[in-house]
Amino acid sequence: MAKSKFEYVKQFEQDDKLLSNCWIVVRIDGRAFHKFTDAYKFEKPNDERALRLMNHAAMAVLKDCPDVVIAYGQSDEYSFILRRDTDLYKRRSSKITSYITSLFTANYVHAWPQFLYTPLSRLPCFDGRCVCYPTDENVKDYLSWRQADCHVNNLYNTCFWNLVKQGKSHTEATARLAHTNSESKKNELLFQEFKTNYNTLPEIFRRGSIILWKNSLLEIQAASAAAAATALPSQQRMKLTRQLTVIHESVIPDKFWREYPGIVPSLS
Amino acid sequence: MAKSKFEYVKQFEQDDKLLSNCWIVVRIDGRAFHKFTDAYKFEKPNDERALRLMNHAAMAVLKDCPDVVIAYGQSDEYSFILRRDTDLYKRRSSKITSYITSLFTANYVHAWPQFLYTPLSRLPCFDGRCVCYPTDENVKDYLSWRQADCHVNNLYNTCFWNLVKQGKSHTEATARLAHTNSESKKNELLFQEFKTNYNTLPEIFRRGSIILWKNSLLEIQAASAAAAATALPSQQRMKLTRQLTVIHESVIPDKFWREYPGIVPSLS
Amino acid sequence: MAKSKFEYVKQFEQDDKLLSNCWIVVRIDGRAFHKFTDAYKFEKPNDERALRLMNHAAMAVLKDCPDVVIAYGQSDEYSFILRRDTDLYKRRSSKITSYITSLFTANYVHAWPQFLYTPLSRLPCFDGRCVCYPTDENVKDYLSWRQADCHVNNLYNTCFWNLVKQGKSHTEATARLAHTNSESKKNELLFQEFKTNYNTLPEIFRRGSIILWKNSLLEIQAASAAAAATALPSQQRMKLTRQLTVIHESVIPDKFWREYPGIVPSLS
Amino acid sequence: MAKSKFEYVKQFEQDDKLLSNCWIVVRIDGRAFHKFTDAYKFEKPNDERALRLMNHAAMAVLKDCPDVVIAYGQSDEYSFILRRDTDLYKRRSSKITSYITSLFTANYVHAWPQFLYTPLSRLPCFDGRCVCYPTDENVKDYLSWRQADCHVNNLYNTCFWNLVKQGKSHTEATARLAHTNSESKKNELLFQEFKTNYNTLPEIFRRGSIILWKNSLLEIQAASAAAAATALPSQQRMKLTRQLTVIHESVIPDKFWREYPGIVPSLS
Repeated sequence: MAKSKFEYVKQFEQDDKLLSNCWIVVRIDGRAFHKFTDAYKFEKPNDERALRLMNHAAMAVLKDCPDVVIAYGQSDEYSFILRRDTDLYKRRSSKITSYITSLFTANYVHAWPQFLYTPLSRLPCFDGRCVCYPTDENVKDYLSWRQADCHVNNLYNTCFWNLVKQGKSHTEATARLAHTNSESKKNELLFQEFKTNYNTLPEIFRRGSIILWKNSLLEIQAASAAAAATALPSQQRMKLTRQLTVIHESVIPDKFWREYPGIVPSLS
Repeated sequence: MAKSKFEYVKQFEQDDKLLSNCWIVVRIDGRAFHKFTDAYKFEKPNDERALRLMNHAAMAVLKDCPDVVIAYGQSDEYSFILRRDTDLYKRRSSKITSYITSLFTANYVHAWPQFLYTPLSRLPCFDGRCVCYPTDENVKDYLSWRQADCHVNNLYNTCFWNLVKQGKSHTEATARLAHTNSESKKNELLFQEFKTNYNTLPEIFRRGSIILWKNSLLEIQAASAAAAATALPSQQRMKLTRQLTVIHESVIPDKFWREYPGIVPSLS
Repeated sequence: MAKSKFEYVKQFEQDDKLLSNCWIVVRIDGRAFHKFTDAYKFEKPNDERALRLMNHAAMAVLKDCPDVVIAYGQSDEYSFILRRDTDLYKRRSSKITSYITSLFTANYVHAWPQFLYTPLSRLPCFDGRCVCYPTDENVKDYLSWRQADCHVNNLYNTCFWNLVKQGKSHTEATARLAHTNSESKKNELLFQEFKTNYNTLPEIFRRGSIILWKNSLLEIQAASAAAAATALPSQQRMKLTRQLTVIHESVIPDKFWREYPGIVPSLS
Repeated sequence: MAKSKFEYVKQFEQDDKLLSNCWIVVRIDGRAFHKFTDAYKFEKPNDERALRLMNHAAMAVLKDCPDVVIAYGQSDEYSFILRRDTDLYKRRSSKITSYITSLFTANYVHAWPQFLYTPLSRLPCFDGRCVCYPTDENVKDYLSWRQADCHVNNLYNTCFWNLVKQGKSHTEATARLAHTNSESKKNELLFQEFKTNYNTLPEIFRRGSIILWKNSLLEIQAASAAAAATALPSQQRMKLTRQLTVIHESVIPDKFWREYPGIVPSLS
C-alpha cells in the first residue's frame, strides 16, 4: 500500500506556535449552556451544585497540568493561565486549547452524578479559545476583567431572577431593569423590594472561583508510635506542602498578588 | 466596579479564522493513551470494545454537527471532515477544534460503562488539531493517508503482539520485526508462524472505521390498521431516509467516492 | 562575545507559511498616493505616463519571479498571482509580500525619469498584502473583482474630473454624482454634457492592465549569409517564444481564459 | 457590471494583526546581495560607501515612521524597532513589513548615485520579516544578538579577505580559518600576519550602525541684531531639539540604555 504517495498531505498542517515568553490564557465556555441548564433545571441565577462541579473539573486540569498556575471560573466559563515559559505541546495553540477543554469535559461528565444527581442524557460540551498576554500587568488585568464581568452579570441576574420569582415575565423583568443602569440602583432594588443585601450573598456567586496552589504547613503524621516517641519539637513535626485550593477573593487589589507571590512574582 | 478599565484585554485575542472554501479536517488523538490503555488492560493489538466506543463517540459528533460529512477513525485517533463552506463558529480554528474534541470526550466518558464495563478512575483525554485542504483531491488523499497508516501500523502490531503472546519480550519482538520491512514478509510471518491469514482479520482492525450518512429506503410503518388498509403499491410505502452508518471499506479506490456521491460530489 | 546568550531571541519568529496548493495573490497599493499624485500633478482621472510606469515596474516583477503567472494593475495598485505550487521563500507570507513590494518599488523609482520626467524628491512607497485562493474559480473571480472595481471607479472618476474641469468644486461634483448612482446615468452624463462616449476611452483606463507571458512565433534571424542560404522552408525558420505582454482585455468572460490556457489550465 | 458578484473574494483575506503590547521588529535583508555586491564590485569585507547608503535609507524610514524608535544595521540587513503601542496599519504584519521594506528600497535606489557613483542597472531588492517581542529585555537582547552577529561575522570576514588579498584562494582561506575557531586566534592571525589590531578598525565595521533620535541643546540663532541685543543669559539662548543620529556604540552594556532613556524607558 503506497503510504508515501499520500503522505504529502501532512504539509498542509500549519504551525500555530504561540509567541514565546507570553502568558497563555485558555478560556472555555459551555456550548449552548442556556438550553443545557434549562434541560437540567439549574437553579437561577446561580446553581451552587453546578458551580462546584465546574470547580471540581477545573481542579482536575490544574492537577494534570502543572504549568497552569491559576484558574478563574464563573457561570459556565473557566480560564486557565499557563506560565509564560510553558513548553506544553511546544506551545501549539490548538493542542493546548483542545487538551484543556477535553480534560475539563471528561471530568465534568464523569463527576456529574456526584454533584447534580440527575442522570445525564443530553451531554454537556465546551469550546475553548487561547489568548497570549505579554506582560504581568496584562494577565492580572485579564483576571480582573473576568471578575468584574462576573460581578456585573451576577448583580443583574440576581435582580432579574428575583423579579421573575416574584411573578414578572422575562420581558417585564428586562424592562424593569432597563431603568436601573447604575450599580447602586440595582443594589437598592434588591434591598427595597427583596430585603436582600447584595454584599451578603455567597462570594462564590459574587466573585466567582479562583483555584491555585496554596502553601501550607502540615503536621507530619507520626508513622508509628516509635516515631512519635522521638519527641521532636513541634515546629520540626511540620512540613511545607502545597494544596489545590478554591478561594473567592477579589483579584483586583494588589493585596491579592502579594498574598500569593508564586503566581506572578513581579506583582508581589 | 470599573469594568471598562480592564476590557482592553479583549483586544489581545487574535483572529484564527480558517481560509474560506477549504475542507476543514479536525483530527483528535488520545492523550497519553499508551498509559491509559495499559491501565485498563486493553486487548492488543486491537481492543474491539474500545474501537466501538471510539465509533460511538464519533457518531455523536456527526449527530451534533451537521457540517461534518464524513469521519474516519483508527486506534486512538479520529478525523472529522467539515464541508468546504461550513460557517461553524465563523470558521474560528480554536473554537471548532476544541468543540469537536470536547463533544467527543463527553460521549467517550459517558458511554464508557456500556462498552468497557470497568469503572473509570483515570479519565481519558484527547487533543485536537485542525488542517485545511483546498481541493477535493487533497481531502480524499488525507483520508487515504490515514487509512494507509492504519494498515501499516496494524500489520506491524499484529505481528508484534503475536510474537509477544508467543513469549517474546518487547525487545525481541522489535528485533524480529526489524528484518521484515516489507509487507509481504510480515504477511508471511503471520501465516507461517501463527497460521493467520492477515486478510481475513476483521476489517475494523485492518481498515479502521468510516462514519457517514447513508441514504436508504425504509418501509413506512403503517401507523394504523386503517392506513395499512389503504393498500399502496409497495414502492410507495417506502421513503428515502439517511442513517448514520459505520463502514470499513477502503477509501482509496475511486469506487468508494462514486458509491457515496454526497460526500465529495466532484469525485463521484 | 557571548553570541549564544542572545540567540534565544530567534525562537520568537513565528511561522507564516501560506497554505499549500493555493493560489497566492500579492496586492500592492501606493501609500498615501493621494498626496503623492498631487505633489507631482498627475493628470486626472488617469495619468497615462504614470500607469505605464506602474506596468513597467510590474513587468520587472514577472521577469524576476517566474512563479508569477499573471499580474493585474489599475490606478496605484497591482496584483501578482503566484502559481498554486510555488515554493518561493518556502511560501513564507511576509518574505513573499515584502520581496514583491520591494522589487516593484525599486523599478518604479529607478524608471521614474523615463516616464514622468520631473525629478523625484518626495519618494513613492507601496505596501502589500497576501491572500490565498483555494480554487481556480476563486482566483479568476479575484481578478474579475479588481477589474470590475477598476470600471466602477474609472466611470465615476471620469465624471467627477470632467465636472471639476468644467468649473465645479469637488463638493459640487460629488453632490452632482450622488444623483447618478446607476451606470447608465453616468454614461448619459458623460455623453450629454461632455460629448464623451465612455466606451471609446482608452482601454488602459477602463479595464486596467494585464501582464502575462504570451506565446508567439518569431522568425529566426539568420545569423549569417551562409545560414540564410540553407533555404529552410519558411515554417522551419520560425520558433515558438514567449514574451511578456501588456494587454487590456476583459478577464470576466470565459473566452479570456481559453485564449491564455497556460495561466489557469482548468479554466481553458 | 456585477461588482457584488465577485466581491465575495474579499473574505479570503486573513487577519494578521500582531499581538498587542509587544515590541515589533521588522528586519530587512538584501535579496541575493552576494551577486549584487559582486556585480558592483563592493569592497570586501566592508564597503563603507554601501554601508553609508544603507544608513541613509534607514534614516528615511525613521523620518517617515515616527513609531520606529531605534534601528540597527550591519552588512545588507537592517532592523527597525517599533514602539510596543504602535497602531501603524492597525498592527497588520504584512502591511507594516512591506511598507518599511518599500520605503527603504525607494530611498536606497534613489540615493544610490550619491553614494556609489556607478549607474544602477541590476536593481537591488530587499525582503522583510516581522517578529514580536513581549518584554523590554527581549527586545534589548534582540539588538544585542544582531550586534554580536555583526562582530562574529566581521572578525571572520576581515581575516578571510586579508587572506584572499594575500593571494589565497577562497577554499584555502576557508581552510586556514577552520583552525581559528576562537576569537583570540583570529585576532592573533590579523595581528601576526597582517599587522592589524582588530580593535582599531572602524566601529561602523565592527559594531554596525545604530540610528536613533538624540536630544541635543542647540544654540538659538539670533534672528536679528535686535534679538541678539536682548542679552539673554547663555542658557536661555539654547533650545532642546532632537536629531536623527547614526552611532556605533555597543548596545550590550546597560550603560547604552541609560544613555538613551527614551528608547526603552524601563531599561534606563
